[in-house]
Formats: sequence, structure tokens, C-alpha cells
Amino acid sequence: MVITIPRTTTKTVEVERLEGKIAIEEAVNSPYFNAAATYPVTQSIKGWDGMPANGTVGADIMHRLDDVPMRLESMDTSGISYAVVSLTSPGIEGVLDADTAVELARKTNDAMYEKYAKAHPTRFGFFACVAMQKPEEAAKELERAVTQLGAKGVLINGYCNLSTADLDDVRYLDEPACEPFWAMLNKLQVPLYIHPRSPPPGQQRMFQGYPALALASFAFATETGGHALRIMCSGVLDRYPNVRIILGHVAEGLPFFIHRAQERLKLAVENTNGAHTKSLMYYFNNHFFATLAGVKRASTLHAGIAEMGESRVLFSVDYPYESNEEQADWFDSLPLATSTHRALASENAKRILKLDI
Amino acid sequence: MVITIPRTTTKTVEVERLEGKIAIEEAVNSPYFNAAATYPVTQSIKGWDGMPANGTVGADIMHRLDDVPMRLESMDTSGISYAVVSLTSPGIEGVLDADTAVELARKTNDAMYEKYAKAHPTRFGFFACVAMQKPEEAAKELERAVTQLGAKGVLINGYCNLSTADLDDVRYLDEPACEPFWAMLNKLQVPLYIHPRSPPPGQQRMFQGYPALALASFAFATETGGHALRIMCSGVLDRYPNVRIILGHVAEGLPFFIHRAQERLKLAVENTNGAHTKSLMYYFNNHFFATLAGVKRASTLHAGIAEMGESRVLFSVDYPYESNEEQADWFDSLPLATSTHRALASENAKRILKLDI
Amino acid sequence: MVITIPRTTTKTVEVERLEGKIAIEEAVNSPYFNAAATYPVTQSIKGWDGMPANGTVGADIMHRLDDVPMRLESMDTSGISYAVVSLTSPGIEGVLDADTAVELARKTNDAMYEKYAKAHPTRFGFFACVAMQKPEEAAKELERAVTQLGAKGVLINGYCNLSTADLDDVRYLDEPACEPFWAMLNKLQVPLYIHPRSPPPGQQRMFQGYPALALASFAFATETGGHALRIMCSGVLDRYPNVRIILGHVAEGLPFFIHRAQERLKLAVENTNGAHTKSLMYYFNNHFFATLAGVKRASTLHAGIAEMGESRVLFSVDYPYESNEEQADWFDSLPLATSTHRALASENAKRILKLDI
Amino acid sequence: MVITIPRTTTKTVEVERLEGKIAIEEAVNSPYFNAAATYPVTQSIKGWDGMPANGTVGADIMHRLDDVPMRLESMDTSGISYAVVSLTSPGIEGVLDADTAVELARKTNDAMYEKYAKAHPTRFGFFACVAMQKPEEAAKELERAVTQLGAKGVLINGYCNLSTADLDDVRYLDEPACEPFWAMLNKLQVPLYIHPRSPPPGQQRMFQGYPALALASFAFATETGGHALRIMCSGVLDRYPNVRIILGHVAEGLPFFIHRAQERLKLAVENTNGAHTKSLMYYFNNHFFATLAGVKRASTLHAGIAEMGESRVLFSVDYPYESNEEQADWFDSLPLATSTHRALASENAKRILKLDI
Repeated sequence: MVITIPRTTTKTVEVERLEGKIAIEEAVNSPYFNAAATYPVTQSIKGWDGMPANGTVGADIMHRLDDVPMRLESMDTSGISYAVVSLTSPGIEGVLDADTAVELARKTNDAMYEKYAKAHPTRFGFFACVAMQKPEEAAKELERAVTQLGAKGVLINGYCNLSTADLDDVRYLDEPACEPFWAMLNKLQVPLYIHPRSPPPGQQRMFQGYPALALASFAFATETGGHALRIMCSGVLDRYPNVRIILGHVAEGLPFFIHRAQERLKLAVENTNGAHTKSLMYYFNNHFFATLAGVKRASTLHAGIAEMGESRVLFSVDYPYESNEEQADWFDSLPLATSTHRALASENAKRILKLDI
Repeated sequence: MVITIPRTTTKTVEVERLEGKIAIEEAVNSPYFNAAATYPVTQSIKGWDGMPANGTVGADIMHRLDDVPMRLESMDTSGISYAVVSLTSPGIEGVLDADTAVELARKTNDAMYEKYAKAHPTRFGFFACVAMQKPEEAAKELERAVTQLGAKGVLINGYCNLSTADLDDVRYLDEPACEPFWAMLNKLQVPLYIHPRSPPPGQQRMFQGYPALALASFAFATETGGHALRIMCSGVLDRYPNVRIILGHVAEGLPFFIHRAQERLKLAVENTNGAHTKSLMYYFNNHFFATLAGVKRASTLHAGIAEMGESRVLFSVDYPYESNEEQADWFDSLPLATSTHRALASENAKRILKLDI
Repeated sequence: MVITIPRTTTKTVEVERLEGKIAIEEAVNSPYFNAAATYPVTQSIKGWDGMPANGTVGADIMHRLDDVPMRLESMDTSGISYAVVSLTSPGIEGVLDADTAVELARKTNDAMYEKYAKAHPTRFGFFACVAMQKPEEAAKELERAVTQLGAKGVLINGYCNLSTADLDDVRYLDEPACEPFWAMLNKLQVPLYIHPRSPPPGQQRMFQGYPALALASFAFATETGGHALRIMCSGVLDRYPNVRIILGHVAEGLPFFIHRAQERLKLAVENTNGAHTKSLMYYFNNHFFATLAGVKRASTLHAGIAEMGESRVLFSVDYPYESNEEQADWFDSLPLATSTHRALASENAKRILKLDI
Repeated sequence: MVITIPRTTTKTVEVERLEGKIAIEEAVNSPYFNAAATYPVTQSIKGWDGMPANGTVGADIMHRLDDVPMRLESMDTSGISYAVVSLTSPGIEGVLDADTAVELARKTNDAMYEKYAKAHPTRFGFFACVAMQKPEEAAKELERAVTQLGAKGVLINGYCNLSTADLDDVRYLDEPACEPFWAMLNKLQVPLYIHPRSPPPGQQRMFQGYPALALASFAFATETGGHALRIMCSGVLDRYPNVRIILGHVAEGLPFFIHRAQERLKLAVENTNGAHTKSLMYYFNNHFFATLAGVKRASTLHAGIAEMGESRVLFSVDYPYESNEEQADWFDSLPLATSTHRALASENAKRILKLDI
């Protein structure tokens, strides 16, 4: 007797739809520029040319980035009461002219406020975008967006390009120029969501020949996980103890790697690995949160809960790059304790983002 | 009442030492060249200058790479009966002259055979090294090492440098030139261990300013995990179905990422992501194994078992870069079922490497 | 915003049907007596009066106990290739006249052989029933059933009633009279499946007023788990080291309790707790196996794997008391590693029962 | 090569002592009667005769029940800041004369208040004891203890004996006579801790010949788990929705059994299984909490967290029947996320018991 290839059958099953979920890695576009195409990394996704197209996955995604009724209908079907939207990746971070980036950030925040938070206050909040090409301006815009527009925090798509033509001329958030931004973030006490973007082109030798794979998830995740490790090592979290950082995709692999990374740093020569004063796991456990955006796998969820605790892991989707319905079907069907389910579904988000809904 | 900073106390505890363990990611050096320094990536490890030094971590590691009595004593203390040794990273892969690489591989295999497998047949086996700079030669040397010297398989430290001065001029194992190597591996039915090495220098913008971090684990792991994803996508495992691949460090994060990577590839444009015919998880579940080398964290172990099964996860240490005693203390104390403990400790290794000990 | 009561929706989902599963806690009736009604414990199950009825759950179950085509169709739908059937509980153990019990056991084994194993050798095997009211006879019948009829082992429904009218006059398997049975089991090296039955009537003060609850699961499980603990403590497994015991329902709670039970016995006065020489966890890890019969909960499965290992946990259903289809839908959809899935689905059963199919 | 019997070595290890833990299943005796010996079930524990003895485990336990400085020293060593003490089992519940039970409960509560809560307000609280032999009196005493003495809740050792000589003449908490008690509990909104006691003597056929086993854990746990299932089925939690119940020993196996028990009740004849209106898992997830008292096994802890959530599982010891130091060593060393560790260590207890410390 042989275990044959499994055959696929279809079943009609009951799904207990868990109502009242909150999702916080939810992408929108800007009326002022195509934020999904500021950087040429999307060419291997079906039908994607950085512009709306017809009849393809990419075109549908491009359309859904802007369509509020479609988004609300999908949220209703999926039991998602409230979404915190943010400008899609690479967004402002991929704008090569710094002054343009500053202007686009401000105008886009105004637009997100009008279209989402003000128009549908019971359904939408937003994370501000800022131009890290000019950190002083980023700090100012963050303050304006939070205090005047009610932004729930700020979302940054990893490193930002700088204003030269060299596509490896980038800036990471821990670098000295970013100090004004961290000071403001620390003062306002709103979270920073670090969203993935593809590694800089020069970093992509590993994925030569496999562009979709690079885009797909692994390169994004490791780029973003490495960025978070930089921040931990830099000491910025010692200087700004109120800073809280949210990562998507169950913290981009860090639950799997963080213990070993910490252990290995014991071998480092002094002064070669940043000015941090505490252990990597201290920063991870005290400053970081994770969302489930784009993850539909129990073992990954449980690896995240094991290292972060169920009070620091949050439901999310990454709509429209992921399906609200599929993510909800997976999440709602997880055999979790009721209190765990509620913490992940909405209670953690309400506490961390100070949502009054 | 406040939870204060935990205070550290010491306790004398009983450890049930699990005897008979087998370890298979265990590094040795070559008498013919310093295999730990063929590529300039080690300068941020304490006391390491690519040459033996005194009184430092690096010097002690360098010494232990060669010292057999010290290794055996440490194995005895730790309950490790048998070790499969291999040439330390980057080894042959970092040799820039291809003909030299071929010669060093052959002479090093002879040396490992004499010093370890022949001299201590009940305690040591070895994985061959090969020069992927010349894949035909690699295939020949693999055959010789396995059939004449009794090598248990082959260990490759990731991409190899090619014979130009450009340090980004590298070759990954899935690239067309490597076909003769895969054919031989498929024929011999011995496993390939893909050991980490640091990403090529041009890939390291992310870790600029944090050299120890890059070395420490994260960059190594993501470089190696990405390499494994390339191989899955390339179709090489369709052409060579007998190939089995072992990864260290609980499969370098793939248990955490593999499901999402697979899901995301559904969005890829056809013909942009390799010639594979099956799902990523099919390859991962049918062709891959993982060792615990360098991991001392329960959640990481359990993430690996969840996606690979307890029959595909193997104890290992990465001596002398890790401590046999510390790894054994952690592993032996895990509250596992006896049959699980035994599978990981030795039974899986015996089956996969066809050990007759 | 409030988390409301989840609403139930229905979805059509794909189920990857895992073919080739083996199930080994699968009940049949005897043509010679109603084995489901030898003991008056079933009156609170819908439609059950100890006799076939119409239009009710109980009647359907009674019918399915005997209907081979219906059973095969259900197995086919569910991807179950092979079932080891056994006489339904309480079966022979509830027969109050010892000589009758001996006779019924022999005739029932012949009948199970003819109707299942001989008629459908690629689909069915069977576990023998024996009359522990007369352990010498039980040993003889076990030998006959295994060596002449090809029984895969023996299944016993817990304690047996003895031949007095006192319904608390029962015998547990560790009691001295049972020695001949253990000797034969040890010699034949086939497994013993200890199937639950309700606690003796005198033990049921706890469930007074809640008969269905008692029947449902908890009382059955704790009765059977306690029985297994008696056997461990008795020393019988020291005297008969080849004995292997299978428990249903993920080992009836023992994975949850076994460590604490062992720890607490350290407080026991000598000679008050059986003649065992090893720890409870030693017996549990070396002599016991568990099936998933009647369990459809991931946390229970994982508690079992954690304490027994994936090589000692086996798929099963408990048909017709449970649904083949529902059990298969749950099991096949578990996000397990392929090798784990296969071990539980069929490989463990083939190894433990020496199935040549 | 053979896996030999593990040899035991000793190691000096660092334990990070987690300070500020709260423990809430911590036994004390009464100055008015030996509460550990009101019911003859303790004869198989070493040195135990229901009275203080010398030089034995039992004698040491008896001494420690009363010795406050010894208790405080042990708490200090173990990082336990605060303990909620309660009268040791079987306590008031084993007193056969109802009027005596009423008087002893009141006097014992006064004594616990004076000796613990009043004398050491930053270190001790207490759970009241009540005489369920007279539920109206129990309700009155509960109110007095909570409102006048500051009791943090009430602890009941399972069923109580009634005032006849028949040792099976017992009352479970769901039985109609107990209504006044539930009404008061619901009004006061303090938790009820149901502590184990051994099954009534008539229920102990299963453990005949194995008295220590019965005492050790399994019989206690299944008696208490069954009691909790009775309460769920009875409908009392529908009538008194504020009631919250704490169980020890990771909820006495219910995390393992609850899903299956719920599924099986679907087969029950109507009106044979209590007046409850919701699912068993609803009650379990919304009304129950668990402590770790006496559990030192990761898989049991994780089974509990899986079904209850990390916000409903609480550290505890069961001192002096368990060692504060051993329990703390195990708990403090668990590789948990910091937030999970803190929730279990103290935050959950503070929230559930409304502790202002």
C-alpha cells in the first residue's frame, strides 16, 4: 500500500466569522503619484507595469488600492470592522528627489485623512507617511499628521533612497541623520510600522534569475528583519525608550532568528556592532510588535507568539496584495482560546494604537 | 509592586546526559591552507585575524579546529559519540583560483580521511569538500571521496567565488554550470550539506556599520536560505529526484518563511521564477533536512519540527564555533518524548547518512 | 466597538484528501450478542436502547456496526485504505457469566475473521477479543486468534466484570489473576489496545444527574487513563518487557498528567504503590502508543506528540461512533510536515502492527 | 552504537530569578483543627498520619503549613512577592458535622486574616473558607470574609461531606442546595478557587491497591475536572454570569479533554445532561482560569495556554506540598516571551484578584 498523491476534493464547511477584527497593514495609493511604482521592483508580478492594467492580478490590485466601496464590502464580508490604511510600498521612500518627497508626503497625508479617516471615522484610520530623505521635515510632518490629522502612527517602507542617481545610495533608519525623526516619535508616543520593501538593486545578486522570488517574500522579509536588527544594535532604542515598532509578517522572521543572533554577538569585537546597551531580546520583547499580514500558517503564528507573547501579535491582511476573505477564513478558523483570538483580532490593536472605537 | 529586573542566581542542577549523540556540522581546518580565512569576512570576531592568535576567542577556535584529542574530550563530556567533520567555511568555495581549488579539495579530503575517518573510525566520518569553480572536477572528486574514502556526503559553503578579481563574480549551485555535480550527487545518493557563508561583499549594504551582526547569524542564514530557495525554484530537484539537502540552524529560517514564499509565487509572471514543477513545500518536505547546529532555543526547534517533522531534524553543534557542552546541555534538557529525543540525537543521522556504527 | 457573537457562514473549501490512511479503533458488533449492550450504560445516547432502532443516531450507529458496504464506502470517501476492526465496547468484558464470555470471544473472533479479514484482506484486519474473566482461556484464545486467524493484536474494553451479581465486582488487567494473559501477550509480541468503558456503577457518584456527560468522554477517559497508570505501577511491564499498549483518544489524558503523577509518587510510602522499578514516564515512553480516535483538536494532538513523539501517535476514527469523513477532514487539513502526516496516517500503524499491505 | 541509559551529571547553571511573582494556591492550616486530616485519605504519604510527625516528608509539610517566617524566607528565595493563602484540603469540606463546619470556617477566616493578611499586608492575602454543608451560612460567611476581612475570593475543596455517617453522602457545587452561595459569589464578583480533593471512598475501586497513586494527582485531578464539568452543564453559569472559577494544575486536564467532551454531548438525549444553554468551551473560555500549581512540564503548560490563552493562566506553587524553589526554578527558566512570562507571573493574578500591590 502506498500513500498516493493526495486528491483534492471540495467541501462545504461552516466558518465561524469572528466579527470586529482590526487590520493595520492595509495599503492605499496616493492621488498624487503611483506609490507602488516609485522604484522598479514590481515587474515580475502578473500584469504589473506600475500602472493600472486590465484583466490581470496586478490591474485588480491597482484598482483596489483606490476603491473605497470595494474595500468596505470586502471588510464587511471578512468581519473586519476597522482598518488603518497606509501608503503602499515603496511610496515616499522610493522618491529620488527629496523636496518632492516632502511635498508628496504632506499632500498624501491630507488625502488619506480626507478620503478615509474623516469620511469613514468608524471604519478607517491611517498611518502617516514621511520623507526620511529630509528627517527634520519627516519629524515635522509626523507631528502635524498625528496632532492635526489624527494619524495613528507612521509607516515607513524600510530604507529610503537619497537624492542621487545611485540606486544604492540609501539611508537606513538607524543612521545618524534620522535622529530628529526618532526624537519626535518618542515624544508623540505613536508606533512606527516598518513595512518591507525589496533590497536595493545592488543587493540582489542572490535573486538574479528569480525576480518573483525576491519580490515574493523572502528578500522583503530579510531586508526588513535586518533593518530591525540594525535599529536594535544602534542604540536608538536606548536614547528613545518610548519608541514602539510594528513589523509585518510575524516580525519578518525575527522570532526564529533573534535568540541565535543575540548569542552570536557575544563573539563580536567591542565597538564593531553599534552602541546598544541591552540584549537584542530585550529590545525585541519590549519595543516590538508583529502583525499577521500575509501569513496564513499556524507554525509561523505560533513561533511569533512564543517569542513575542499573544499581547504583541496583531491580525492584519495587507489588502489588496492579500485577500481579506482568505486571511479572515484562515484566522477565524484557528483553534485558539477565545481570549487569545480576541487579543490578536482587535484588543491588541486598540491598546497599542489607542483606538477609541 | 513592580516586576524588577531579574536577578541572576546560580544553581547546581542535575543534567541527564543523553549518550550516543551524533553531530554533523563540525568544522575542521585543512593542513594545506587556512580555510577559515579564504575570504575576508572574519575581522570582527574577537581576536580573529585569519591566523592563529593567542589568548582570544578566535585563537582558541583556530586551535580547536585542528586539535583531535581536545575535540574527543569535549565530545565525551557532552555525550557525542560520533561526529561527521567538514572543512570550515568558506573553505574551497572562497578560493579564487579554480585549479588551486581543485587541488586543495582533493588534498584536503585525503587529509580528513587520514586524520579523522581512518584514524578514529568509531568516532569520526567526514563530508567531502569539492571545487564548484569547476563542476566537472567537483563531480569527479565527490565520486572519489565517497567511493574510495568513504565520505558520508559533501558539504558546500554556499556560492563559490569564480576566478576573476570581482568579488561579486560568484556561482550559485542551481546555475547551469553545476549540472555535472548534481548528476553525480543523484547517482551516489549521499546528502549535500549546504553550510552558510556570508553574502558577497556587494550585498552587504544592509550591514554596513554592523560587521559582527552580518557575520553573526542573520546574514549567513538569509544568504543560505535564499540559496536553498533558488535550488527549489530552479527545477534541479525535478531532474535529480534522489538529491537530499541538509541545512544547518534549523534550516536557516525556511520553516518560518516557506509557506508564505510558496503562496506569494502564485502571483508571479510565468517563466520568471525558475523551471520547477512542484510547490516549494513539496521540495522542502521531500528533499530537505535540518540540523540544530548553533540553535539553543525551543521555539526555533519547534518551528522546525512543525514544518519538517521530527524525522528530518538532527542534533549538531558547529564545534568549535559553538560549544559541545553548551549545545548538549540545552539539547539533553529539552522536555521531549524519548522517541523524539532519540530521533533527533542519533537515529535520523544514522538513517540519512547510512551510518553503520 | 464590540466583538459580537461570531456569525456562522458557510464556505466551499478545498480539502486535500490524504489517501492511504489506516484506522485501528473501529468497532463492529458480534453476530452472537449485542456487544454494545452487555452493560447498562448507554441509555442517555439519543435513540439508544441497546437494540437497533429507527430514525435516530443510536439506530444508525447500531446499523453501521454491521454494514460492511456502508463502512467501505465511508472509508473510500475518507481516504482510509485499511481498518483494524474490533468488537464494540463493553463487549466480552461486560458478560457476567465467565463460560459464556469464553465461548462468545471464540465465536466472535471467528466471525470477525470471516466477515472482515478473510473476505477483504486488503481492507480489513481485526483485533481479537478475549475473556479476561478466565485469563488462562484468554491467553489460549489470544494465541489461537493471532497464530491461526491472523489477528493483529487484542483489544480489551478496560476492567471486566466477574461472575457475581455485584456490578462492582470487577477485575483490572494488572491484577494477579491476569498473569497468563500477559505472558502470552509478551510471547506473541502483538499489541494490546485498551479501549475505554464507563467506570463501574459504584464509581459514578460524580456523574449523578449527568449521564450523557459520563458516557460522553470524560468518565471513559479517566477510567481508562487510570487503568493504564495501574498497569505501569504494577510492575507487569518489568516482567513482560515486550508488551506494547495502545490507548485511544490521544492516550486518555496521560500526556497531560503523566509528568505530575510521576513527580508526586516520590512522596509515596514504600510498598504502597505497586512493584514497578522504573519511572512512570519510562513506561509511558517505551510501552505505550496513542491513537487519535475521536479527537479533533490540534492542542490535544500536539500535547500527545510532545510526550509520545510523532512515531507513537496513530490516526484512527472510532467509527461508527465517530464519522470517518469528519475525522478525515480534520486530520487531512492539519498543517503538518509531510513526514509527520504520513507517520500518523499510516506508517506508524504499519510498523507497530506489522502490516504487510 | 547504542543509546545507553542517560548518565546523570551535575552542572552549575545560572537561573535568572524572575522577581515579583504571585502565588495563589498556597496552603495553611487552621489553629482550630487539623484541616489536612478531616478525611482519611492521606495515609500513604510518607510520614503522614494526619498529625505532625518528626523527620519525614509529611511532618515537614505539616510544620510548614503553619510557619510564617519559613514561608516568607522560601518566598524570598524564590522570587515570590505575594501569596494568597487558603485552608488546606480537605478542610471545612471534610467536616461531617454541619454546625461545626460553619463555626470552624468563621474562626479560621478570622485566623487567616490576623496571621497573614493583617500581619503582612504586602506579602499575604487569603481566600475564605466556607461551609457548603449549609449553603446559606456559606453565603453569609463569604460576604463577611470579603467585605470585612478583605478576602480575595473563596477556595472550596471540591464536594463537601454531609452530616450523615455515609461517606458517599456528599454534595457537589452545582446541586440545587448551593444556589445561595452562587448568588452571593455572583454579587461580590470575587473568584472561586476549586481545589482538588480525593474522590469519595466509594469511588475508589479504580485505585484499590495503589493508594499513593490515587492521592498523588490523577484521582484528585479527574475528580476536580469532573466537578468543573458538572458546573458547566448545570446551567449555574447561565444564571450567575459574573462567576469566575480558578482551577489548579493547569485546569485539571480540561484543556486536554474539553473539546472532545463538548463534541460528544451532541449525541446526548435532551434533558439528560443539565440545563446549560451554551457550549462547554464557551463556559471554559469565559468563566475559568488555571494555575500552574504543582505542574513543572512545558507541554502541560502549553496545552493550557492553547485552550485558555496566556491571560488566563497563573503561576502558583501549592506550597508546602510543592517546593517554592523548584517551582520557581522551572517557571523562571521557561523560554517564554517577556510579556507572557509577566502575565503568568503576576499580571493576571493582579487583574483577576483585583490586587492593589
